Amino acid sequence: MLESVVLNEGLSDAVDMLWLVVAGALVFFMQAGFAFLESGMTRAKNTVNVIMKNYCDMCFGAIAFWVLGYGLMFGANHTGWLGTSAFALHGVPESQYGHLFFQMMFAATSATIVSGAIAERTRFSAYIVGSVGITAVIYPVFGAWAWGGLQGGQGWLKQMGFIDFAGSTVVHAIGGWAALAALLSVGPRLGRFGPDGQPRQILGHNLTLVAMGAFILWIGWFGFNAGSTLSASVSLGKVALNTHLGGAAGALGALGAMAMMRRKRMMTSTLNGSIAGLVSVTAGCHVMEPAFAILAGLVGGALSVFAAPLLERWRIDDVVGAVSVHVVGGVWGTLAAGLFRSGDLFNLNQLGVQALGSLVAFVWGFGASMLMYWVINRVVPLRASTLDEQRGLDFSEHHELGYPEFQHDAVHRGKRHG
Amino acid sequence: MLESVVLNEGLSDAVDMLWLVVAGALVFFMQAGFAFLESGMTRAKNTVNVIMKNYCDMCFGAIAFWVLGYGLMFGANHTGWLGTSAFALHGVPESQYGHLFFQMMFAATSATIVSGAIAERTRFSAYIVGSVGITAVIYPVFGAWAWGGLQGGQGWLKQMGFIDFAGSTVVHAIGGWAALAALLSVGPRLGRFGPDGQPRQILGHNLTLVAMGAFILWIGWFGFNAGSTLSASVSLGKVALNTHLGGAAGALGALGAMAMMRRKRMMTSTLNGSIAGLVSVTAGCHVMEPAFAILAGLVGGALSVFAAPLLERWRIDDVVGAVSVHVVGGVWGTLAAGLFRSGDLFNLNQLGVQALGSLVAFVWGFGASMLMYWVINRVVPLRASTLDEQRGLDFSEHHELGYPEFQHDAVHRGKRHG
Amino acid sequence: MLESVVLNEGLSDAVDMLWLVVAGALVFFMQAGFAFLESGMTRAKNTVNVIMKNYCDMCFGAIAFWVLGYGLMFGANHTGWLGTSAFALHGVPESQYGHLFFQMMFAATSATIVSGAIAERTRFSAYIVGSVGITAVIYPVFGAWAWGGLQGGQGWLKQMGFIDFAGSTVVHAIGGWAALAALLSVGPRLGRFGPDGQPRQILGHNLTLVAMGAFILWIGWFGFNAGSTLSASVSLGKVALNTHLGGAAGALGALGAMAMMRRKRMMTSTLNGSIAGLVSVTAGCHVMEPAFAILAGLVGGALSVFAAPLLERWRIDDVVGAVSVHVVGGVWGTLAAGLFRSGDLFNLNQLGVQALGSLVAFVWGFGASMLMYWVINRVVPLRASTLDEQRGLDFSEHHELGYPEFQHDAVHRGKRHG
Repeated sequence: MLESVVLNEGLSDAVDMLWLVVAGALVFFMQAGFAFLESGMTRAKNTVNVIMKNYCDMCFGAIAFWVLGYGLMFGANHTGWLGTSAFALHGVPESQYGHLFFQMMFAATSATIVSGAIAERTRFSAYIVGSVGITAVIYPVFGAWAWGGLQGGQGWLKQMGFIDFAGSTVVHAIGGWAALAALLSVGPRLGRFGPDGQPRQILGHNLTLVAMGAFILWIGWFGFNAGSTLSASVSLGKVALNTHLGGAAGALGALGAMAMMRRKRMMTSTLNGSIAGLVSVTAGCHVMEPAFAILAGLVGGALSVFAAPLLERWRIDDVVGAVSVHVVGGVWGTLAAGLFRSGDLFNLNQLGVQALGSLVAFVWGFGASMLMYWVINRVVPLRASTLDEQRGLDFSEHHELGYPEFQHDAVHRGKRHG
Repeated sequence: MLESVVLNEGLSDAVDMLWLVVAGALVFFMQAGFAFLESGMTRAKNTVNVIMKNYCDMCFGAIAFWVLGYGLMFGANHTGWLGTSAFALHGVPESQYGHLFFQMMFAATSATIVSGAIAERTRFSAYIVGSVGITAVIYPVFGAWAWGGLQGGQGWLKQMGFIDFAGSTVVHAIGGWAALAALLSVGPRLGRFGPDGQPRQILGHNLTLVAMGAFILWIGWFGFNAGSTLSASVSLGKVALNTHLGGAAGALGALGAMAMMRRKRMMTSTLNGSIAGLVSVTAGCHVMEPAFAILAGLVGGALSVFAAPLLERWRIDDVVGAVSVHVVGGVWGTLAAGLFRSGDLFNLNQLGVQALGSLVAFVWGFGASMLMYWVINRVVPLRASTLDEQRGLDFSEHHELGYPEFQHDAVHRGKRHG
Repeated sequence: MLESVVLNEGLSDAVDMLWLVVAGALVFFMQAGFAFLESGMTRAKNTVNVIMKNYCDMCFGAIAFWVLGYGLMFGANHTGWLGTSAFALHGVPESQYGHLFFQMMFAATSATIVSGAIAERTRFSAYIVGSVGITAVIYPVFGAWAWGGLQGGQGWLKQMGFIDFAGSTVVHAIGGWAALAALLSVGPRLGRFGPDGQPRQILGHNLTLVAMGAFILWIGWFGFNAGSTLSASVSLGKVALNTHLGGAAGALGALGAMAMMRRKRMMTSTLNGSIAGLVSVTAGCHVMEPAFAILAGLVGGALSVFAAPLLERWRIDDVVGAVSVHVVGGVWGTLAAGLFRSGDLFNLNQLGVQALGSLVAFVWGFGASMLMYWVINRVVPLRASTLDEQRGLDFSEHHELGYPEFQHDAVHRGKRHG
């Protein structure tokens, strides 16, 4: 009997690792999703810059999370506040390397939420420094509270019973709050608001690219949510189903909200609605019945549409709607995980814990990010020069154009390798 | 011994679910494949509309299939004609939620085949209603005959020994017949046929996007076919290999057919040929030897090229070649599954059953769709107004342009938020 | 006990096959990655042609590898030099069909490296013949030496202890050497070098497409490297982690090299740097500690930037930098696998074996390819006619334009179906 059980354990571990690697690869792909969704929503003159930001925050972030973030988040955490081991995988057995692989992708996801929000006017180097700060410190510290303690101890929010299965708060709200801090720090794009404060639309240059991004984010979310089981089990099916239904309902919620506002059914808002729906089921997809996943997604999608004009009213220029998707969806999803738990619906105690977790995420995520961007701004200005912003960051930061044969004005304005 | 077997069963179920979720995610991605293939084959002024159709048919379809379609298709089916349980997952154990997840993606695939065929002139709302009709009723009813009876009973075509492993008929031919019905209901695009009936080409605006779609469809097909095992097994390898060889041979068949017709080797026809090849091995990839998978794909790819001008002769304006790929490939693939079964080659009885299944699919798929589109047309006209069609559906339906910086005519013609 | 072990074996085999199929599908997707990376780096007038080359080399290659290549590479190999069985899967049990599926994707990867290097001036038919030659003979013969002997016997390089886990040499260096041979055979594009030999940049037309390609290559690499375990195991995590860190470090290395050369941080070079980083950990990702994977990637990425101008100096017009990524990265990665092996760092004997393997790859890969292209050139000229090259291969080879609404010059220059 013993032999056979041992054999099983080996196989079971192998299967879990297989799943972690597949799911991690899918979450990796979300980085491409963000890159294209964001790039398509900007003007052609900044398309290379946006992609470079996403690509490089992932590359720098991977190293930073290996060195520092993973240890802070998942290292031995006896106080409940911070991990203190496993830096650069020190003392971690090889059988856990896959866990870092998977978690590394989550860290990059959280950090990259900022890039789209502040696109088209942010200095590349300052952005990268901020992104490393999120991956290495801001994200893992909150993560240590909510998910920490893999090597002993347990995060304090986790101890309180905070439910956030795959990161509505840990990943999305934290990333979204950091984006809001960055938005306030860097200010709106030139011409986004008229002298009277009236908002003016700046159109995205490539909506097929935006759709590509949304589709990729969606498939990545199956790894994101179902992978958060960290092991193969029959419950994967429920998680994947709820994820899909949440995303689908999010699109419907957004379409409904647009109909209520007597707006045409815009594709960009529909895509954002489905992403908000996905965020809204991320915290509770393992404990909700499908009908509630649909409800959570529907509300999340609708809220993302209603929230967007509010930000505009405050003259916040969020290029891709990152705050309305990730903060609004993230907070709502975290509350929904408390409200819609099967067998324990509308438990107000749980709702209180969820609200507390969301509040803490705001205080830390927004506060620490404001401080960080303030410091960065002292050293390297966050804002690109006016000339660079007008010319486009592709040329000024990277000496490359996205579509040189089709951007005649840009080509004539300056020689490329001048 | 008992313990160990139980342990095995738990692991085995977990592995099967893992595979279902991974395969389902791949099939999900096919929706993106269709969106981009179809969008790239239309004019730039309709690119957003095409993507919105694909995105929304998936979102509406997911909810509709959860509520109704899944029950009709896989619910208890004691008559062999229709499932009568499992609506909104009522009474279905959580361990089967993954099955709905996987099948939901198939339903969306079948429905979305229509979108490309009737692109550039169909009213969005009418399209969505039709799409929900396919996902909720037309597809699952035929599905109940060929695959039904998960919760007791068995579909009548299944009882007769009809072979359709992953859906050459159930998914592709049904979707293709619905597309033909929609094509006849909505008519050709303005200017597609001259006053003398002479066909005039309308070029797709973005062939890299078309290629992206084809690649994504292909990778999705590994989930589509190999996932149809519904469990992990060593036979996955054979299915995946036959799928790949079928797609590869389809491209070769299309290239050969173009050479025979003394046409230049067009990329769009080559991509369609490989998709037709993939459709052609979908029914029988689990029972054919690789050499026959190649033969099936080769013939399917060639047929897709030969069929396209026939449709044109009947003044049918199939924008993406959906009928020549999915109907022609689907019927051929279903016959091929009967002809090329290992150990039972050219069994005429089996061929008869396959032909009967294909005929039934035509009668139901085409007939029910014709009726449905006739009814829809009474309530909401299927055809967009001439002005909207000329201006492009992106502007008129969604108030968005795909590439606002590059579509100068479209931008000048009307203010976007006018 | 026996029963349970048997049961386990069945499950274990099923899991291994599942992994092989998933990983194979990811490697398949790399073909799309190459297609888009290469297509985006060329001018719009050749974008269809580049994608067709990638698509078709995969389709022809799949059949060719099934017929011939697989047998040469993995058939019974008692001399250590060549496989002599398993042609067209003759005598191979169905349980091994998945192995061909997986290996078929590798063969296509190796062959497709050539396509981007010689883009924009190579005749389609001649290219395809060369590509089949690589898939059917050049790649599998070297593969037989390094990896061969699945059905008895063992390749001679493998016997010597040559380490090349997933193919830094077998796939990338061989493909890269073939690309160099093709480059020398076909010559630079018109206008790429001035009369004085001064290089002139020809800009890629679509850098978002290039980025799409890079992201897809990266996700594909998880299948490529982690799939090379050929079975599920906990070591997958380490392999996947090292792969990701190698790619991330490659981008950083490229950025560092650009900073040293006082160049702006170009996106194309950064993407190429990360791909070079991925190539650099491909040989040794299973035996290195993460810190060394980072080092290997960092150096590989930097080398890819330093190598590019050297090729230019020799008037070699490598459109996508295939040689600097795949040859330089491949050779370096092979050496790094010997240098950075955990528990056996800087073993000079191993380094010698690695160097020998790299040298043999050059002699065979470059030599056989030179010969092959010389023979092809006798029958079908490799080089497209000057008129075709000027007009663009999309029109002349395929009668299609990538973006007909946006390529006004090209449209006016000649009627499409003229």
